[in-house]
Amino acid sequence: MSDETSVTPLVPREGWHVMHLFYHLDHSQWSMLSADEQRAAKTRLSTLVQEIRSQEDTHLLTFAVATPKADVGFMLLTPDLQQANAWEKRLTLSLGPDVLSPVYSYLSQTESSEYTTTSEQYAENTLKGEKGLSEGTPEFEAAMKEFEERMKHYLHHRLYPVLPDWPVMCFYPMSKRRMGEDNWYSLTFEERKKLMGGHARTGRSYSGRILQLITGSTGFDEHEWGVTLLAKDTIDIKAIVYEMRFDEVSARYAEFGDFYIGMQLPLDQLFERVCL
Amino acid sequence: MSDETSVTPLVPREGWHVMHLFYHLDHSQWSMLSADEQRAAKTRLSTLVQEIRSQEDTHLLTFAVATPKADVGFMLLTPDLQQANAWEKRLTLSLGPDVLSPVYSYLSQTESSEYTTTSEQYAENTLKGEKGLSEGTPEFEAAMKEFEERMKHYLHHRLYPVLPDWPVMCFYPMSKRRMGEDNWYSLTFEERKKLMGGHARTGRSYSGRILQLITGSTGFDEHEWGVTLLAKDTIDIKAIVYEMRFDEVSARYAEFGDFYIGMQLPLDQLFERVCL
Amino acid sequence: MSDETSVTPLVPREGWHVMHLFYHLDHSQWSMLSADEQRAAKTRLSTLVQEIRSQEDTHLLTFAVATPKADVGFMLLTPDLQQANAWEKRLTLSLGPDVLSPVYSYLSQTESSEYTTTSEQYAENTLKGEKGLSEGTPEFEAAMKEFEERMKHYLHHRLYPVLPDWPVMCFYPMSKRRMGEDNWYSLTFEERKKLMGGHARTGRSYSGRILQLITGSTGFDEHEWGVTLLAKDTIDIKAIVYEMRFDEVSARYAEFGDFYIGMQLPLDQLFERVCL
Amino acid sequence: MSDETSVTPLVPREGWHVMHLFYHLDHSQWSMLSADEQRAAKTRLSTLVQEIRSQEDTHLLTFAVATPKADVGFMLLTPDLQQANAWEKRLTLSLGPDVLSPVYSYLSQTESSEYTTTSEQYAENTLKGEKGLSEGTPEFEAAMKEFEERMKHYLHHRLYPVLPDWPVMCFYPMSKRRMGEDNWYSLTFEERKKLMGGHARTGRSYSGRILQLITGSTGFDEHEWGVTLLAKDTIDIKAIVYEMRFDEVSARYAEFGDFYIGMQLPLDQLFERVCL
Amino acid sequence: MSDETSVTPLVPREGWHVMHLFYHLDHSQWSMLSADEQRAAKTRLSTLVQEIRSQEDTHLLTFAVATPKADVGFMLLTPDLQQANAWEKRLTLSLGPDVLSPVYSYLSQTESSEYTTTSEQYAENTLKGEKGLSEGTPEFEAAMKEFEERMKHYLHHRLYPVLPDWPVMCFYPMSKRRMGEDNWYSLTFEERKKLMGGHARTGRSYSGRILQLITGSTGFDEHEWGVTLLAKDTIDIKAIVYEMRFDEVSARYAEFGDFYIGMQLPLDQLFERVCL
Repeated sequence: MSDETSVTPLVPREGWHVMHLFYHLDHSQWSMLSADEQRAAKTRLSTLVQEIRSQEDTHLLTFAVATPKADVGFMLLTPDLQQANAWEKRLTLSLGPDVLSPVYSYLSQTESSEYTTTSEQYAENTLKGEKGLSEGTPEFEAAMKEFEERMKHYLHHRLYPVLPDWPVMCFYPMSKRRMGEDNWYSLTFEERKKLMGGHARTGRSYSGRILQLITGSTGFDEHEWGVTLLAKDTIDIKAIVYEMRFDEVSARYAEFGDFYIGMQLPLDQLFERVCL
Repeated sequence: MSDETSVTPLVPREGWHVMHLFYHLDHSQWSMLSADEQRAAKTRLSTLVQEIRSQEDTHLLTFAVATPKADVGFMLLTPDLQQANAWEKRLTLSLGPDVLSPVYSYLSQTESSEYTTTSEQYAENTLKGEKGLSEGTPEFEAAMKEFEERMKHYLHHRLYPVLPDWPVMCFYPMSKRRMGEDNWYSLTFEERKKLMGGHARTGRSYSGRILQLITGSTGFDEHEWGVTLLAKDTIDIKAIVYEMRFDEVSARYAEFGDFYIGMQLPLDQLFERVCL
Repeated sequence: MSDETSVTPLVPREGWHVMHLFYHLDHSQWSMLSADEQRAAKTRLSTLVQEIRSQEDTHLLTFAVATPKADVGFMLLTPDLQQANAWEKRLTLSLGPDVLSPVYSYLSQTESSEYTTTSEQYAENTLKGEKGLSEGTPEFEAAMKEFEERMKHYLHHRLYPVLPDWPVMCFYPMSKRRMGEDNWYSLTFEERKKLMGGHARTGRSYSGRILQLITGSTGFDEHEWGVTLLAKDTIDIKAIVYEMRFDEVSARYAEFGDFYIGMQLPLDQLFERVCL
Repeated sequence: MSDETSVTPLVPREGWHVMHLFYHLDHSQWSMLSADEQRAAKTRLSTLVQEIRSQEDTHLLTFAVATPKADVGFMLLTPDLQQANAWEKRLTLSLGPDVLSPVYSYLSQTESSEYTTTSEQYAENTLKGEKGLSEGTPEFEAAMKEFEERMKHYLHHRLYPVLPDWPVMCFYPMSKRRMGEDNWYSLTFEERKKLMGGHARTGRSYSGRILQLITGSTGFDEHEWGVTLLAKDTIDIKAIVYEMRFDEVSARYAEFGDFYIGMQLPLDQLFERVCL
Repeated sequence: MSDETSVTPLVPREGWHVMHLFYHLDHSQWSMLSADEQRAAKTRLSTLVQEIRSQEDTHLLTFAVATPKADVGFMLLTPDLQQANAWEKRLTLSLGPDVLSPVYSYLSQTESSEYTTTSEQYAENTLKGEKGLSEGTPEFEAAMKEFEERMKHYLHHRLYPVLPDWPVMCFYPMSKRRMGEDNWYSLTFEERKKLMGGHARTGRSYSGRILQLITGSTGFDEHEWGVTLLAKDTIDIKAIVYEMRFDEVSARYAEFGDFYIGMQLPLDQLFERVCL
């Protein structure tokens, strides 16, 4: 890794860089390698995956991808884009030249949501409004402290997520629509916050079944956000995406890219799955 | 199949996973195999097809595809996505590296319709309303029992379909439109149910000529549903798709992907058809 | 052709299947064949073309295609889709593996128009209305008989066309628009019939210069119809397509795919044209 | 050219066929040729270019293309489409199989504009109206004669153009929009003529800096017209296309394809430019 | 460079030509070169980069590109398009045939903005209006002189930019929308200038963190402008593009192409990054 020692890291002020990488496995190229070369290639990829996973603040998920639109997928979360770029090129090359042939990739960054409830809003609307508590009372102070702890934890998880090992992964990119009457970017902040609030409620009703990570890609890639869903049952992926489509924020304002379904597998099972 | 023994199956709470797989056959790669290798390759595919078909709750249809946009097609229905994924990779590779080259594929899941008539609706609208029967009378009870049997069978067939061996297969993906005034996801449930009812009537008028299977793919692939039509005469495919296009639900709210026409053939005839 | 003897034919209740096939000729693959192999390849294609043309109710046109977007084209009309599929795969392979590489293809079916004048309309509008004839008079009966002969011949030609050997062929696929205010499938039958009538009048004014064949592909391929124009002068192709674009039925309701210009050539001249 | 002696030419009643041909140069294929074969290949292309240019009423421009979206371009103007097709296939093949690999091409035809001022309009509007001349006076007759000479020359140049050897060539295809309120083909002839008049005025203000040739491709290729601009300075290409975009005829009614920038170079400099 | 000595340069009246070049690195082709050939190839590219950078008024930036959508990128700014074209072809070929395989490129030209504040506007609006200065007073004259110096420098930088060595580069092409109610080219100059003014204010708030260069490509490439952003932290790229999307000029009038993220690296580190 002499490369990375001499290059100044590119670490954002907050959050991590995220890469979703999907590859077709070219068995024709693979079959040109000898049995020894094939063994060495698999070892090279395994070693690289271990090396990446051993880095601080770095996560690498490995997937088998459903249907021939891809075979193998990686999801990489790490602070430094220079490092991410170096690993990505080495992952692509790990099984030999042109064995992993890129079919789709996506660059994004973890980010906090601009629409989360602020402490002021929680104090006014929930504590004083809904619960009738007075500022300065012990109940009020305890509730505020609990809220702030929860938000801090939530925000930290959005910026520095640790993803569960649930077997199903769904990735899709999306943008907000700017078309005639349906122009998200012409709405006021309050209108957008209200619409996003309904969306968030739908999301919370899948708690424990769906882990959703939204990462920002405006200026980085062809859509504005990447959405990663992790689930234990594919039917929950279908259910949440379908249900959310009726939220006005999706019905009128969402444009979706293609959807990729992967299954988290350890490398040895992944090799077997894709017939290496 | 050591792979599948060690991986936890991914079986949805209800329904099966469905894959439509379309391939171009690369005769240039094929011609590089010796006659022995070619024979072995055909046997490998035949054996795999038999193995898949011998599994419980699993169906595999094999097609010759019309026009060079594809040569060979498979439709796989099976509960476990891990298993489906493993078979799909092996099918792709079965005739040798890069002989079957994927041109289009689709992932979906069987699902019940949210718009089917409920027992309550049938009792109110049909039995009490149209037929003037009173609740609790023997005629009413018999009709309800018959309705519930029929619906149970219908629902079971949607979730766990057995497809007839009719020669023509048509597959196309579709989504509901979200565009200006024509936004399906902004309609109420009642509006959508009414529109779907008209569509269903058109479908029923083709009973015995067209078998239609609609599978859900929201969150799985680039459209929201996959439609599989089986027929004895291609003219019925053209007639039903054309007639449905005038239903408001299609005229205003449907977006279609490309259409694929396959012919169900046993493997030996399929090999001959594609000049193997 | 052992294949076709054992497969049940797929012949529609009325009309023929139609395939338009466009290929790039890969000279790099071709140059790897020996002179003997090249001679054998050309003979194989010639023999296949003769075999296809010798079948009943079957037509095969051969084209050189203008501009490098394709080199060679075929148009096949035949009743049985199984047979068409078998021939199509053999045509693709005839000059050797990957020498003819498909760039575009289209599947459709001959069909009668739903908007043609009925005998009742002709009797009411033309004979009684315009010409003032009374039903039952000898003039009326003669005119009706002549009309019915003419329509029978016209309808037969649409379903079972014999195409002239005019040198220029233009193919393009098209659909009717379903977009906002311009939704063809939301119009009544009468509105559509009236709009199509204007279009037909434009078409008839090119009689003797343009032969137009419209074949249906709803449910078969990515557009709803295929249009084949034959002409003696390319300028008439440009003139009719341009003039029709001003008809409201095209101006507001037509969506066009790409256009392909071919020149009918006998095989030996076609080989010379594409430098074989 | 035995091919062309036996095929009936396809010459339009008026005007010439035009082909724009853009190629990627495959250096990998080229490097497989020996030095002798490379020399022979360059001679073959040079000889073919000379042969084409020696034909009557035939022009062939050769270009280096900017940015790797293409390397080499040709623009061919000639009456007979059979001949054009034969030359085009030979140009593609001239440097050896797959050395020139087509990336974009366009077929069109020179045509007169339907919106040019007629003699009647000139007499009424300009001579009688603006200049107050009376029909039959010597001034009137002289002005009419001069107008008719000028129009004849203009029309002849549109149908049978001779293009200057200015170094910069810009090609792009375009169509008129048919979308909601902005439907060119729903306008009256007078509305269209008025809009085109404004466009023509913009064009004339670039006289001496931009040579514009508009050729028709409705029914021939994916757009309705091809536009070829020749210039001495690229900045004039940018200026005229940008300025015209504000004309209502472009702002509301134009749909553009991609733009290609070529530089006219003699073959020996072109070979050097693309590193042959 | 004998080529360029004999070709008349194509230098625009003002500004430079700009090329953005993105390549996939084909390791399969690369691995066919011997160690000596690989060394020679790297030296050839290094020498060429030095040669280009040694030319007057010429800048060449080299990038590693994030995610496998590209591997290597160049940004070339130079007056003469003939020269730029020659260098571009040599850069593409520098590492050997088909080692650098173009995936995206863009041609544009530096240009001044038509919407900058004029001296008259500054005098009227800012000095007389906002600051209440009278024409002819020393303060007024000094302010005018300062303004004109600043504008001259700003304009010179837009036409002849010197880009900082900040590590992050973002490139995307864009056009102004012409769609229904949202038609940029139907607005008056004053409306456009006002909208662009808001945009410019957003841009200035990123001063020191984002260097933005907008180059014109109307008539040159598929969009109307190319936007190059340089930054020290990727998060600023995301922030500025996201924030600008709410400006009416983007929300209603902008159409974006794809986004490319590159990292400026010296060649030796770039070679290491892409595993050469």
